[in-house]
Amino acid sequence: MSITVAVDAMGGDVGLDVTIPASIRFLQDHPEHRLILVGDLPAIEARLSALSADARARIELVHATQVVGMDEPPQLALKNKKDSSMRVAINQVKEGRAQACVSAGNTGALMATARFVLKTLPGIDRPAIAKLMPTVKGTSCVLDLGANVDCTPEQLLQFGIMGAELVGSLTRRERPTVGLLNIGSEDIKGNETVKQAGELLRGSALNFYGNIEGDDIYRGTVDVVVCDGFTGNVALKTSEGLAHMVSVFLREEFTRTWWTRLCALAALPVLRHFKARVDTRRYNGASLLGLRGIVVKSHGGTDALGFRFALEQACEEVGSNVIGHIADQVALQLEKIQRPAVEPSTTPETL
Amino acid sequence: MSITVAVDAMGGDVGLDVTIPASIRFLQDHPEHRLILVGDLPAIEARLSALSADARARIELVHATQVVGMDEPPQLALKNKKDSSMRVAINQVKEGRAQACVSAGNTGALMATARFVLKTLPGIDRPAIAKLMPTVKGTSCVLDLGANVDCTPEQLLQFGIMGAELVGSLTRRERPTVGLLNIGSEDIKGNETVKQAGELLRGSALNFYGNIEGDDIYRGTVDVVVCDGFTGNVALKTSEGLAHMVSVFLREEFTRTWWTRLCALAALPVLRHFKARVDTRRYNGASLLGLRGIVVKSHGGTDALGFRFALEQACEEVGSNVIGHIADQVALQLEKIQRPAVEPSTTPETL
Repeated sequence: MSITVAVDAMGGDVGLDVTIPASIRFLQDHPEHRLILVGDLPAIEARLSALSADARARIELVHATQVVGMDEPPQLALKNKKDSSMRVAINQVKEGRAQACVSAGNTGALMATARFVLKTLPGIDRPAIAKLMPTVKGTSCVLDLGANVDCTPEQLLQFGIMGAELVGSLTRRERPTVGLLNIGSEDIKGNETVKQAGELLRGSALNFYGNIEGDDIYRGTVDVVVCDGFTGNVALKTSEGLAHMVSVFLREEFTRTWWTRLCALAALPVLRHFKARVDTRRYNGASLLGLRGIVVKSHGGTDALGFRFALEQACEEVGSNVIGHIADQVALQLEKIQRPAVEPSTTPETL
Repeated sequence: MSITVAVDAMGGDVGLDVTIPASIRFLQDHPEHRLILVGDLPAIEARLSALSADARARIELVHATQVVGMDEPPQLALKNKKDSSMRVAINQVKEGRAQACVSAGNTGALMATARFVLKTLPGIDRPAIAKLMPTVKGTSCVLDLGANVDCTPEQLLQFGIMGAELVGSLTRRERPTVGLLNIGSEDIKGNETVKQAGELLRGSALNFYGNIEGDDIYRGTVDVVVCDGFTGNVALKTSEGLAHMVSVFLREEFTRTWWTRLCALAALPVLRHFKARVDTRRYNGASLLGLRGIVVKSHGGTDALGFRFALEQACEEVGSNVIGHIADQVALQLEKIQRPAVEPSTTPETL
């Protein structure tokens, strides 16, 4: 199956020098797929000169005159950057020319634009940002990672449904377990929203594990971790900070004296293997779930390898029809949940 | 200065076999300090037989017939366990026989009991749990770590004041910087509570840095990290989970083959040094701040070394008069903040 992905070639901290090499390598690895590169045409073309005729034939170029700044307020980007590489790339999905879009640009602007252009699926209040994270046992999907600061219990249930489908799509796990991020395992723990979300999840058709705590994310206790965007974002960023501290400390310890440098040299292959295992580039690619189109957000600071993983993920989502599955499950499960509220009519029969 | 600390000898996952060895070692290290060991007298005495006469003379034993279970609901413990080692230890502080209390028992029960027995300081709505965490630059104090699931902006301001005083007390830093944990650095980020807390903190006399993100905790961007107890608890537990994963992966990589085992042997001194640096026992001891008495919570699963660090921390807090400083600052700063709300009277002058 040939898949076409639209690439926001200008997005990210680096832009073209990451997105174009990643795109070229992606086309070489996947002779069946196609890319639409969106951005400043002359600048893109200059970087494609050495490309083989075969790969070049699978690239379409679309010009865009604007670029969304990494710190630009989403609403301003939405209003003033109608010809940005980000928006034009999303338009490719909307207009059916691409089946997915990948951008390393400003997350808030990407979410706002994607939501405006593509709209949400029926039954989904707001899209969520979901990401596979490494765990002791493999990977877990965590959502929301920052799109929704305040969430209703119903939204958290929607996240559970979407996360389960994404895990099914990306890892082929059957009936993935879903956990609700909380500060204790007992049902009575947490704030009102979380308690009510727990009730909805328990009553749903999902394979609900129950409450989990922060450490369960990396223990791989469940396949899907549901939380509001504030908590999820803090958990993700805190992890980044801790990982950075660990790498700084390891480097300091191994470079302290000539003797520890020798030790490092001896341990280098092992340390490299360890580093590869926790390499964030391998987990690059966050899915904007709940939209009527596939949008994958690459980390703004990633390199070509990381961006390529985001392109791969977009293809996986297209290939497994994740949006179709989410739409089906949302329709099925929300219907079930809403039924009790509708069936016992409050209208007196005598009227 | 001689300090007396009351020890909940029965608390924690292990109880006496951690608390008593830690207490003995503490008395040997500090010939000026005294301990009140609270719990099952015969069981405690059996563990003190080998003690020197000098150290024995600085121990007072107080019998308690009950023990609070690690999973016991706080309200039940408060109601039914009036003669628990935890409660009797806190009573020692209330009655002025000890200047601080240390327990490795059930956190919720400890907080509920301490609050009931000792009461909060004037101006403090609810106590918070605060802890020093290791950072790239040294340590930062994070609060609240789980005592308050929902917080008002005023409470978050109170946490900032208390955290700054604790940091001043434990690390002697002058005018510690205070950051508000959020999902972006701009003032407009976050939910309503966080935005309002930001305004209060900006208007306060604290050395307010502004919003910080999760990764700033371990980057040591600020001295004090303010957050609600839900977010703080998730950040703390997520860190525990990630640290666990890193150690599992490192162990797996270094034990993969006979060659990597040799590498590990070569790197052992360096790895040990690294491990000591991130040793959670060194950071054991969370302060229950905002009470009219010093209560330090030790991790329930720590060993004697970790428990000893919690005893040390209690002494530091007594020696630096952290409660006096918190009470002064809260009175001073809250007076300032409440003034504008009081001065422009809403009562019409003509009445």
